[in-house]
Amino acid sequence: MKTLWVYAHPDPRSLNGALRDHGVAVLREHGHDVRESDLYAMDWDPVVRHDDFGCDPDSRLDVLTESQRALENGTLRADIRAEHDKLRWADTLVVQFPLWWFGMPAILKGWFDRLFVQGFAQGVLDPTTGRARRYGDGGLTGKRAMVITTVGANAATTGPRGIHGELDEVLFPLTHGTLWYPGMTVVPPFVVTSALAMTDDEYNETAKRLTERLLTLPDTPPIPFRRQNGGDYDDHLVLRDEHARGETGIGIHNT
Amino acid sequence: MKTLWVYAHPDPRSLNGALRDHGVAVLREHGHDVRESDLYAMDWDPVVRHDDFGCDPDSRLDVLTESQRALENGTLRADIRAEHDKLRWADTLVVQFPLWWFGMPAILKGWFDRLFVQGFAQGVLDPTTGRARRYGDGGLTGKRAMVITTVGANAATTGPRGIHGELDEVLFPLTHGTLWYPGMTVVPPFVVTSALAMTDDEYNETAKRLTERLLTLPDTPPIPFRRQNGGDYDDHLVLRDEHARGETGIGIHNT
Repeated sequence: MKTLWVYAHPDPRSLNGALRDHGVAVLREHGHDVRESDLYAMDWDPVVRHDDFGCDPDSRLDVLTESQRALENGTLRADIRAEHDKLRWADTLVVQFPLWWFGMPAILKGWFDRLFVQGFAQGVLDPTTGRARRYGDGGLTGKRAMVITTVGANAATTGPRGIHGELDEVLFPLTHGTLWYPGMTVVPPFVVTSALAMTDDEYNETAKRLTERLLTLPDTPPIPFRRQNGGDYDDHLVLRDEHARGETGIGIHNT
Repeated sequence: MKTLWVYAHPDPRSLNGALRDHGVAVLREHGHDVRESDLYAMDWDPVVRHDDFGCDPDSRLDVLTESQRALENGTLRADIRAEHDKLRWADTLVVQFPLWWFGMPAILKGWFDRLFVQGFAQGVLDPTTGRARRYGDGGLTGKRAMVITTVGANAATTGPRGIHGELDEVLFPLTHGTLWYPGMTVVPPFVVTSALAMTDDEYNETAKRLTERLLTLPDTPPIPFRRQNGGDYDDHLVLRDEHARGETGIGIHNT
């Protein structure tokens, strides 16, 4: 594998830092190439600005139009281009973060906001139909992605009927809306619950479980999200009646 | 109402900017007090750092512990304290943003990451039971919140069976996990779909609809999220069998 490991935690001495060090080492020991984006260490700027596209700060900013123009002209800001190069190089993307307010820390959300520009991860058109390639097909087709996240809450409260909401569904905006959208194959997330107080035994067990997940990543069955162009959706991109009949909500987009 | 209007768009000349100007003006014309946090105009820093809590950057950072200590000692970074004061003053919070990758722009996610510290919006304990006050009760009880968001996709694709996932569920990490968690009453989001190309008539209709939502905000029936301590959850905070029997996922946390 050629893995890009994107990591967002303010302290390398944290549980997240330990798991990152462990995971990267395991991959390298097994002959895989790893590049890293340690967003805090890089002092990554997560804010989309006129500057990203070389636009005059006093001009009207249409993010989609300007980002596509800058992508095509090679004039995206240098930090974005460097990350694009790493992502183009990789066949596997690992996205690791502590779950903050049921989502990514801002520094990581802004990695996607700034990198996933028009023409790169969205607005990639099929030349035949003129339709946007999305959900199972798109600018990042052929790559695999795995989310690693740590959660203070326990397995019960983040489980299927737990008060915080079933974690797989809480992560849907990332797994489905951000990773599957541009065509990446997304495997089930690696979740560490009860992450605030972990014994050495629990840590060792978690590290072992991570080792297994990383080494089996190429063959792990992906989350069975439906493909935009697989026939399950009608011409308005609404799920056809015969699938998940009578149901609504996030869950219906898995087969 | 005393409304804090938090707004995150890089360009004030955008649709979002126009709706913000309109909404703030409507509230003021009707005698309501409005304070604003225009995050781009403020050049808001969305990244949680050691600095937030006055910690040595070379020290091990336990965010929950250090944030609570800094809150209690009044030593949170000045920009956080200023926003806390605005939020304490408000009885109503409006959170407005363009939906980017099915979530908030990073600059706004980091407003919550940095403000919602331990002892303020989480880890607020009930002195009798020692249990954390959450979901319908907590540090921000008594305030109302409304999300305003613009989406490029149309109403069908963001609807109950649309390919992007039902938008109310996509917003669950914000509405339930961030606003309802610390005890705010959350009304249904104000959503503008097909936001990329809007005619003048469509804009005027949207602005009119926003006026109505704002002026009826105090009496709008909230999203019927279940209360942590309302009896629907068992002692492990798992939804009792008799509610939404046999179902799982995000949707079961509405009554």
